[in-house]
This record gives sequence, structure tokens and C-alpha cells, in this order.
Amino acid sequence: MTNQIPPIQRVLIVGGTHGNELTGAYIVKKLEQQPAQVRRATFETITLLANPEAFATVRRYVDKDLNRCFHQLDLQDLICSSYEQIRAREINSLFGADGKTPADVIIDLHSTTANMGLTMITDENPFNFRLVAYLQSVNPLVKVYILPKSAQESSGLPSICELGCTIEVGPVAQGVLQAEQFQQTEALIDTALNYLEHHNRGVISSFDNALTVYRHVGTIDYPRNELGEIQAMIHPQIQFKDYEPLHPGDPIFLTFGGKAIAYEGTSTVYPVFINEAAYYEKGIAMCITMKQQVTVSIGRSLRRLASFS
Amino acid sequence: MTNQIPPIQRVLIVGGTHGNELTGAYIVKKLEQQPAQVRRATFETITLLANPEAFATVRRYVDKDLNRCFHQLDLQDLICSSYEQIRAREINSLFGADGKTPADVIIDLHSTTANMGLTMITDENPFNFRLVAYLQSVNPLVKVYILPKSAQESSGLPSICELGCTIEVGPVAQGVLQAEQFQQTEALIDTALNYLEHHNRGVISSFDNALTVYRHVGTIDYPRNELGEIQAMIHPQIQFKDYEPLHPGDPIFLTFGGKAIAYEGTSTVYPVFINEAAYYEKGIAMCITMKQQVTVSIGRSLRRLASFS
Repeated sequence: MTNQIPPIQRVLIVGGTHGNELTGAYIVKKLEQQPAQVRRATFETITLLANPEAFATVRRYVDKDLNRCFHQLDLQDLICSSYEQIRAREINSLFGADGKTPADVIIDLHSTTANMGLTMITDENPFNFRLVAYLQSVNPLVKVYILPKSAQESSGLPSICELGCTIEVGPVAQGVLQAEQFQQTEALIDTALNYLEHHNRGVISSFDNALTVYRHVGTIDYPRNELGEIQAMIHPQIQFKDYEPLHPGDPIFLTFGGKAIAYEGTSTVYPVFINEAAYYEKGIAMCITMKQQVTVSIGRSLRRLASFS
Repeated sequence: MTNQIPPIQRVLIVGGTHGNELTGAYIVKKLEQQPAQVRRATFETITLLANPEAFATVRRYVDKDLNRCFHQLDLQDLICSSYEQIRAREINSLFGADGKTPADVIIDLHSTTANMGLTMITDENPFNFRLVAYLQSVNPLVKVYILPKSAQESSGLPSICELGCTIEVGPVAQGVLQAEQFQQTEALIDTALNYLEHHNRGVISSFDNALTVYRHVGTIDYPRNELGEIQAMIHPQIQFKDYEPLHPGDPIFLTFGGKAIAYEGTSTVYPVFINEAAYYEKGIAMCITMKQQVTVSIGRSLRRLASFS
């Protein structure tokens, strides 16, 4: 299967897709000054500060969430004229499959107010599965959140490339740099680039990794009134408890009057993006995942590939 | 000394002075629906969502930080026409000393991305000292941050009233509601209103409280280049270590290249507002305080009043 992916020629590291997520933006600004840190012998690494206007004003976006502007239909619609829609077309014309300097791999750097630690968000591409299995074998704290392309509706920036993925690090407040998460993200980028270098050289060591993944199955919104105003907060028992089991009947919200609201699902799930600041306006209090074990074989025994239970 | 302050007639509870500090804004929205929670027999309690436009767009401010718009000179300058300057004049014309319904006490509700727990910010008014001593006697976790009127330059919203004070709760990310901090803030408001009620009734129990206060002495900015861009992050050793001692030579910053920068002061200080998101643009990486013990006597023995060492 590795042979299906020819050697990687160009990797794009993106920060500041959301202008108030400073971790990625400042990593990209650092790499602009110190490109040797991400230089590898077998491929080119380039960097991009994706939304400079939003970064300058420390806001997620100016007109529209840039990370929802990459639908193929929108990219082809030249009438769309918000700042982010124009910027999305520019980025696609540079790094998309038909762009001037198409990227084979995109790593998009984000941060979240949720306690998601160091998370890789990817689709089900087998190449990405091997990549994240490698990352988790190097750093067992790396969490893997599987967001099928249908769920993303392919509108995120990494979707302009077959092998796009996203790093989420948290909890980090919007508009804040935290050194620990900055360095964790840098280390994860470094490991990912090493994997791509090994791939190109055909020197990936053989190993089986029992990978734990969290597969996106849906979202839960806050209780709201008829005006759309939220009527409850994340329950303190699950605040910062991303990736921990939520059982039917467990409290998930607390009304302003102090009354607990229980999770009404029928099975145990694993919420992520709990209390992400940017998702209040999107109608998302948390995303719901199923925890799954996957065996990913890398190297010699490549016949047993990623398979969901 | 208590006799110098006549009975409190009107208390104003303010939220949403900064539109992305949701704790206070949602407490005020709740109190608009449930005013009985803050009703007391001897005074009127009113609430104010101070910056509704900023709250609607979940930003700190629209044009200008509202909590820096209350300089007396600015309030008298009718040419100032930014949204927040107009709003400041409206608020002052309602609740200022010469307003339609002047407030005797203002409690302004804020949150911070720094780990400041439950902090009361006040000037050195003896009445406020007795109030915070009472609050700390009820909840020993309450921290007291003394910001002399000169340091504030009297431009904050609470400065339109002699007995204004600010509640800061954190760490809470901008744009996020956290139930624990919401309830802690509500409880602190409740205790403060109880104190004011006791004051009006003359039934404050006699007690001496050895109050710990943190007195503002200055600020430290991030290392920056000639363009004003920051060149280092808060050092992980002091991230979330508000109110803890910082000794000369201790690391305070970490460059993007991983080099520690030491605190160069000559004495031990106690930083607060460490890595507050909104202070990057103000040139403040942290505020520096001195820790002091003060004995505040309340009730019968009122002759020994707040005295700084």
C-alpha cells in the first residue's frame, strides 16, 4: 500500500488559519526565520500564515471562518468576495492540486480551548493512518481524532490536498501563546516530517501499532431558548474531560440556575472539543466520538491495514 | 470610620464590560431574569450589560476598550465618538455621581486567562478594605489585588463611583463560560451584598482579619523586536503561577528558540495577570505586585484601620 503514495515532494505547514490561535501562527513566523528546522533532504517544506488579516487583529476570522471556505464549489465561485473566500482561492491556486506549487501534504496548526492535549485530526486515508500510528508510537500522548471527509464536508484548508491533516493542541485560550503547547506542537511537526522522510527513503521500520482512535459521530449543542441564547453551561464534571467516557445519564450541562442536565444517548461516547470557544456560534457544545482500537501495520507486513472494529 | 460611609442606597452589578468575558455577561443576563437573587431589604440592586455590541460579537470591544474610557476628561469630551466612548458617557450619565440614578457601589465582573482564581481588585478606600476583609474571612481563597487609583488612572468603569471594585475570575478563556467560575463569582457577589446589607443595618460582627493583599507596583512587557512583535513566551515555569513568588534570576520568558530569560528585578515579587490574552496589545506580559499583610479591624474596634507595612 505505501507504494500507492509516490514520494512526497512538497509539504506545507500552515499556521494562523484562525487568527487568534497563536500557537500555529507563531510557529510559522518562527519557521519563516529559521527554515532549517523543517528542512529535509527528500522534499521541500514551505510555510504559510494563512489568515494574516485575522492574525493582525487577533480574531478567528475577518468575515467568514477560513477553515470552512474550501468547498470545491466555493473555490470555483468567483463571485464569493469576502476576505476569507478570496484568501481561500489564493491559497488553493498556490497549493491545491492544480496550483502553482501543489502541496502533497498539508499540516494545519490549530489550538483549542478544549483539553484535547496533542491531537491529530485526519480522515481515513491509509497513508495518514500510518503517519498517525507512527506519531503515536513516538509519543503515546498523541490522540487521533478521525473526521471522515463527509463530516468535514471537505471545506477545511487541508482538504485541498489528499494528505491533509490538522494538529489541535489545548487547552489554550484564544489570543494566548503557551510555551509548553508551542514546543509540543513543534516536536510533533518534527516527528511527522521525519516520517515523511523515512517514507520517501523507504526506510520505515516494520512495526505493528495498536492505535487508539476516536471517530467522529456527531455533535451536541447547548440547550438554547427560542432566540438561540444558550440556557446552560458545560457541566463542571465534564469540563476539560475530553476523550473520557460519557455514559448515558451522566451530567453534561448545568443550567444557570444550577440544575444538571443528563446525557440522553444510549451508549457510552467520548466527547472532544468540549467548550471550544469558537464553536458556540456554530451550535456545538462538544463533538461526540466513538473510541476504537485499530491495528496499523507499517513496514514489511503491510497487508494488514487500518481496520475499524 | 464606618460612619463616614452613609447607608448604601444603590448597588450596580456590571457584566460584559468586555464582550468576550462571558462569566459576568451571563450572570447579568441571569439576574435580569431573576432579580430576587440580588435583592436586599436596605438598598436597590440594579444590573447592567455594559457593552452589548461587543458581547453580541464576542469581542473585548468594538472600537476601544470600554474599561479605559472613564477618564473624567474623556467623559466631558463630547467630541469622542467611538462606540465605547459614547457608551461610557451614557453609563456615567446614568450611574455616575451626577447621574440619574447614581450608584453608591459598583461591582464590575470580569474574567481573565490568567490563573487569578477569585480576585477582588480594589483601590485603598478603607470601606473597600473592610469589604474585601469580610469576603476573605468568608472565603479564604479570595485574593485581594490593590490597584491604587493613580495606577488605574481612574479610567475603569468602577471609577465613576467612590466604592467601585472589580471581580476577576480565572483562568477562563475568552469566549467561554465555565460553570465553576460562574458559580464562584455568584457566591462572591452574594457575600458582598450581604456585607453591604450588614453595613446598612449596623450589624457587622466585630472581628480582626489578617488580610493578605497584593499591591500593584508595575508591569513587565514581552521582549519585542523593533516592529513590536513579541520575541518570547511566558516561561512554562511561571505559566498559571499567579500570586506565587518570583525571585531575581527566576526564568520568566522563553524565546521561540527555547532560551530562558530571567527576571532581572532586585527583590521577590508576586506576578498576576500572567499571560492575560487581552494584555498582549497593551504591552503587558504580567503585572507585578508586592505581597503585604494588613490587619483590618471590623465592627467594634474600628480605630485600627487598614495600614500598609
